[in-house]
Amino acid sequence: MNKKYDVVIIGGGPAGLTAGLYTARAKFSSLLIDKIMVGGIITEAAQVDNYPGFPEGINGLKLGKLMHKQAIKYGLKTVTAEVTTLKIQQGQNVIKTTEGDFVGRIVIIASGSQRQKLMVPGEKELIGKGVSYCATCDALFFKEQIVAVVGGGDAAIDEALHLAKFASKVIVIHRRNQLRATAILQEKAFAESKIEFQWNSVVESILGDDFVEGVRLHQVISDKKSVIRVAGVFISIGLKPNTDYLKGALTLDASGHIVTNKNMKTEIASIFAAGDIRSGSIRQAIAAAGDGATAAFYAKEIIDK
Amino acid sequence: MNKKYDVVIIGGGPAGLTAGLYTARAKFSSLLIDKIMVGGIITEAAQVDNYPGFPEGINGLKLGKLMHKQAIKYGLKTVTAEVTTLKIQQGQNVIKTTEGDFVGRIVIIASGSQRQKLMVPGEKELIGKGVSYCATCDALFFKEQIVAVVGGGDAAIDEALHLAKFASKVIVIHRRNQLRATAILQEKAFAESKIEFQWNSVVESILGDDFVEGVRLHQVISDKKSVIRVAGVFISIGLKPNTDYLKGALTLDASGHIVTNKNMKTEIASIFAAGDIRSGSIRQAIAAAGDGATAAFYAKEIIDK
Repeated sequence: MNKKYDVVIIGGGPAGLTAGLYTARAKFSSLLIDKIMVGGIITEAAQVDNYPGFPEGINGLKLGKLMHKQAIKYGLKTVTAEVTTLKIQQGQNVIKTTEGDFVGRIVIIASGSQRQKLMVPGEKELIGKGVSYCATCDALFFKEQIVAVVGGGDAAIDEALHLAKFASKVIVIHRRNQLRATAILQEKAFAESKIEFQWNSVVESILGDDFVEGVRLHQVISDKKSVIRVAGVFISIGLKPNTDYLKGALTLDASGHIVTNKNMKTEIASIFAAGDIRSGSIRQAIAAAGDGATAAFYAKEIIDK
Repeated sequence: MNKKYDVVIIGGGPAGLTAGLYTARAKFSSLLIDKIMVGGIITEAAQVDNYPGFPEGINGLKLGKLMHKQAIKYGLKTVTAEVTTLKIQQGQNVIKTTEGDFVGRIVIIASGSQRQKLMVPGEKELIGKGVSYCATCDALFFKEQIVAVVGGGDAAIDEALHLAKFASKVIVIHRRNQLRATAILQEKAFAESKIEFQWNSVVESILGDDFVEGVRLHQVISDKKSVIRVAGVFISIGLKPNTDYLKGALTLDASGHIVTNKNMKTEIASIFAAGDIRSGSIRQAIAAAGDGATAAFYAKEIIDK
């Protein structure tokens, strides 16, 4: 396998695959590395209704596979490997992986984020069957049903407010006795009659066989246990950007995302970031794909020089 | 018809339709205005191969219709009208159109650009049949064929260089005796053996019945006429952003595009710009759609306050 490329792309979700589609179509030798092929959080979504062009919606994994097929068709090479280190060297950045080292004149970082998992029984088993990490994606599935949101930050309250437009009741489960979310969001949540709160509570397990049926709570002050019946559990306890392999090589924002300008350029001329991993990303497949195309376009400007 | 909306979107291409999909799904009352429905330059593309999710490619008009159907499904309202004036008033911006006035708390401007036309016989008739305004979109259709590029600026030379990867010969037709393009691009074009130049020449007409067969040139110094045989004509004499109705209300860049930050916000808090019309846009459907989603996301932040 060739080791040197015009462009090496880290991450095989919508951002990476679109970047690869564009660089391959521009006839640049292009390699995409992901530890799972096809990758990206999108592949966890049972039904994606908000990717334009698919009015009836599309399964997330299927969408990923279509994007993959399209990029490969134009010559994108892929390798299934985990990136361990990115060594930035102008003109020949070295990407160390579990399958050996690769060199890229340009590197497009599109390795996304992982949803923080609760790590409780039932969570993994019921993903896509009532357990969700994205209210924007999945709220419409819970019309007139009772759902839970786990978390107390801005994202969790935002999700609860969004869900309240569809669900009959939204129960916010938070481990503390007050929210972390900003005042205005708290105000709105308290004013919304559909939203209730379970304070000082942590989820012990998620219940259900084929679909979510409820959650088992542990009330940490009273030390009581209880079960509440819900059809959906939205877990919003944060995202963990996949940047471990950077080891401080690039500037990150307060939430650990890579800072870019609007052309997806980082502070290093040969390094771009696209999709969920970049600071300010709205973490939607369509926006990530757009980022990927933009990164590829501006990478071309550098290579053409 | 309702006259007041949370969000009014100007322009019905990928940026506008995606913004509308997202604002409608967020349950904001949303109106999209375009003078053609479905609109956007994408509808002129016979075959779109670089919109991720369609490995076999898709007709541009068909893609536009799918996006339109999807946004309408979630409640986006549309009106077919030409916008004549945007009157910016915080909290209730007034959009004057040929079908009456509408008011939007938020306005997302996604009215795109028009390709500058040559305005010669045969041009309009042969669009999509050899006449193209986008080498990135259409270069692959001209493998081992002779094509012409009309223009001498950065975009034209960039298109010529891109086409040289596919075509057997690329003839750059320029009305002057030197290029306007930056030095480095000129250097590359002169070094590319596949690229030839027709200096001091203007296109008088594009020839062909079902497909482009050639162009008739007028050599302006010698006053000679000639015909050259080509299978494709790429017209790259500039873009005209559709901003007439703004009448100076927003800051534009040197090329007449609307300046935004990376969240698609203009200098006015309630006005966003997305897609081809914004400064720095790469003028690709996927990136425009991404912009639309991003604008909708950050518009939501304002409305939720």
